Amino acid sequence: MLPDLGKVLLVGAGPGAADLLTLRAARAIETAHAVLYDALVGRDVLDLAPPACLRIQTGKRAGKASVSQTMINRLMLRLARRGLRVVRLKGGDPSIFGRSAEEIDFLEGHGVDIEVIPGVTAASAAAAQFGFSLTERGAARRLVFATARKGDGALVEEGWSGLADPQATAVFYMGRDSAAAVADRLMANGRAPETPALAIENAGHPHARLVRTRISELGAAVETADFDGPVLLMIGLAAGRARVRAPLDATFEPDMENRQSVRQGSKAQVK
Amino acid sequence: MLPDLGKVLLVGAGPGAADLLTLRAARAIETAHAVLYDALVGRDVLDLAPPACLRIQTGKRAGKASVSQTMINRLMLRLARRGLRVVRLKGGDPSIFGRSAEEIDFLEGHGVDIEVIPGVTAASAAAAQFGFSLTERGAARRLVFATARKGDGALVEEGWSGLADPQATAVFYMGRDSAAAVADRLMANGRAPETPALAIENAGHPHARLVRTRISELGAAVETADFDGPVLLMIGLAAGRARVRAPLDATFEPDMENRQSVRQGSKAQVK
Repeated sequence: MLPDLGKVLLVGAGPGAADLLTLRAARAIETAHAVLYDALVGRDVLDLAPPACLRIQTGKRAGKASVSQTMINRLMLRLARRGLRVVRLKGGDPSIFGRSAEEIDFLEGHGVDIEVIPGVTAASAAAAQFGFSLTERGAARRLVFATARKGDGALVEEGWSGLADPQATAVFYMGRDSAAAVADRLMANGRAPETPALAIENAGHPHARLVRTRISELGAAVETADFDGPVLLMIGLAAGRARVRAPLDATFEPDMENRQSVRQGSKAQVK
Repeated sequence: MLPDLGKVLLVGAGPGAADLLTLRAARAIETAHAVLYDALVGRDVLDLAPPACLRIQTGKRAGKASVSQTMINRLMLRLARRGLRVVRLKGGDPSIFGRSAEEIDFLEGHGVDIEVIPGVTAASAAAAQFGFSLTERGAARRLVFATARKGDGALVEEGWSGLADPQATAVFYMGRDSAAAVADRLMANGRAPETPALAIENAGHPHARLVRTRISELGAAVETADFDGPVLLMIGLAAGRARVRAPLDATFEPDMENRQSVRQGSKAQVK
């Protein structure tokens, strides 16, 4: 029997692997009547939903929404008004580049009960997977999360001087198509060209791929890597400590330009 | 029967509530032979360890370690060499102000197998609990995690200009004793005195306490609040959207100085 009044849970799906969900998030999915999910949410995560649960892919990827935000909002409202327990699944943490504010405002404006369940953000998962600290003492006193592009796809042009601190780890989400621009602006604002830089595809997944380079070569390295999935750029001295450790099944091979590329997972492969 | 070779798992315990652990972290604790835990790790989290598990509190709180880092390192090494599965539990995420690099370096230097399991960081938990986005479009294009003090307790004096961006959400971990200093330096570097500021005690716990103010009054507000637990400072336009929502059991009352203080949880109480 459904409750009289519906509810929407904005749930952080974490970085992809189902066992990096929180217990609270897993329970929310297991008891959902409807799940709306972004393209970045893993199959294993979705499989936690009960068989009768309505599954709706909203298909956001690289800034392009195949279902508009307005449509998503209306759909959540309609389902909640039918008395359903609606789970809105977002990759990573809903409060970090997850556009949660827009959904909270809309739903609260319509009197819908909301709960937000936090998740592990991709940067934390990447640091865990590749064995470094985002805030290593002596190397990084600050940690900055950023995107290089605005909602309309244009490059962010303001505030780059705020990333000049050599003792900051700078993390760019959704960085695949802006690696060269990010590197240029960081160097123009005083970051040394030899500052370590990582590009990580599918951070936190068993098949994550890591490219290690320096910011002066970041653009070229990302282009060569030909990434397909979501890409995190991580820049700074602390990021230079990234390494592949046991028990991950991985190989790496430095190339002639001092770049190192690693593929992890069961299909270990040097790129 | 114990395995021949021990292992150390550096595990993010999340913000405190046991159901904000990841499934992977919960499994690690449930199968641990020994757990070393910081003071900020919740009782419910520890209760997941099996009865026979060795429990060792390392007692770090507000920068003071009751057991030194050297001692912690040696203890982990000794336990791992006995073939034990050792869980090193850290509040939040081990890679964000968790000193994980020092432990990874030490253990790897001694040939100990290590795995890092990420956790939900306190800032994500606070944003979820109080219904705002850390990166709200139009209000926050960047998110900065910082501490105001160095390892020796001295104030960080460098890099404050990097926090001047009015479109950045600035989060200070372990902020209880540096709220006034943080506010002064942010204003000296161009942040408007009326910029919204939050001080949150025990973020993510059911009994979290929220104080809402502006940076010009942050020092006084934190002093008045007389916090006992760990305090997160969150500054910026996006933080100004923090609010208490259903179904949390909470009350708030604005005071004469435009401050609002909220206590959440079963013992709801206005401070």
